[in-house]
Amino acid sequence: MNRLYHFPLSPFCRKVRLTLAEKKIEVELVEERFWEQNPEFLRRNPAGKVPVLRVDGRFLSESQAICEWLEDTVPTPPLMPRDADGRYEVRRICAWFDDKFHEEVTAKLVYERLKVGGRTPDARNIKSGSQRIKYHLDYMAWLLDQRRWLAGDAMTLADFAAAAHISALDYVSDVDWNRHAVIKDWYAKIKSRPAFRSILSDQIPGQAPARHYSDLDF
Amino acid sequence: MNRLYHFPLSPFCRKVRLTLAEKKIEVELVEERFWEQNPEFLRRNPAGKVPVLRVDGRFLSESQAICEWLEDTVPTPPLMPRDADGRYEVRRICAWFDDKFHEEVTAKLVYERLKVGGRTPDARNIKSGSQRIKYHLDYMAWLLDQRRWLAGDAMTLADFAAAAHISALDYVSDVDWNRHAVIKDWYAKIKSRPAFRSILSDQIPGQAPARHYSDLDF
Repeated sequence: MNRLYHFPLSPFCRKVRLTLAEKKIEVELVEERFWEQNPEFLRRNPAGKVPVLRVDGRFLSESQAICEWLEDTVPTPPLMPRDADGRYEVRRICAWFDDKFHEEVTAKLVYERLKVGGRTPDARNIKSGSQRIKYHLDYMAWLLDQRRWLAGDAMTLADFAAAAHISALDYVSDVDWNRHAVIKDWYAKIKSRPAFRSILSDQIPGQAPARHYSDLDF
Repeated sequence: MNRLYHFPLSPFCRKVRLTLAEKKIEVELVEERFWEQNPEFLRRNPAGKVPVLRVDGRFLSESQAICEWLEDTVPTPPLMPRDADGRYEVRRICAWFDDKFHEEVTAKLVYERLKVGGRTPDARNIKSGSQRIKYHLDYMAWLLDQRRWLAGDAMTLADFAAAAHISALDYVSDVDWNRHAVIKDWYAKIKSRPAFRSILSDQIPGQAPARHYSDLDF
């Protein structure tokens, strides 16, 4: 069986999990404490990161490369438009979340609060992340005022990249759902998809999710 | 005319410059001191990063999204294989360099030595980068022992991503060309391409390049 080595709140793993589930590809989830750099894990992925997807005896790494490979090999349902401009916009938004949003918000809030890899929460990081998420939510709302989904009128990998980060932040109660109705509507749509169920049932030992985390009426 | 807002030693800009030049797309290069977060620049790219490509009045950002858009819209010469597995490997290696190599090596050596954004060189970063580059060169050599180019038997975006980082490191003399003959051979091939000329003529005020930097026999 296919297997995904992952860490429950990792946004990169969540993006791949959503893509797999949407395309109805079954995988066994194996939790990997990647920061311990276990030698057997490093043999599977010398970059030492999650996610790593084992499929037909091969090991695939790098979340965006995995998602594009899934899109190329299992085209239904499509998660990328067919035209070059549409594909560009999906890739640009995935990079926005996986690079800028990750660095400014997810790393500063989720990883700190959960003490991923044994880190000690630093109040300055929490403060900085709590400030920056406002700017990012405003940018998302600006996009969603013009489009049904983040990259256009169809749901794409860009929505999964964003929802992967937002859902991890929501687990630790760091999303202000009152800031923009349009973001709450977008998240309600994506949260109610069957592909989202596995993510809503994640539990981190010693850190219960926010009360509304798995609630479809939040 | 098309225009690329860039910073000379930025590996992300260099990857896009190589792709543009290889596909014979002319651009005017405009140097952008992105860390000053000039408001007009932020209007063009709210992420506040380089490169930004202006083409037909639009502004495109995120280097990998730009390169894939160029590949989709100007397919000749091809810089990606046609099969899903080949494309996966190109994307994986691009991500390896633009994420892991960038964080562990380029940021620690190039940005420190050039004091990008006014930073003060930190001896611990320089030491760490100088150690880590050895591991990365060994990994490249391992790939090149099995393949003519980094992602397979044809030159691809993966080679441009790697050469973008390696060339910036070579400017500041941080590549040990004696470590692996196979890497020197690979770099000699890529360095002699007409697409590489603009990169070899880069000059940073107050920081001359290594003596062999633009030499095809290095």
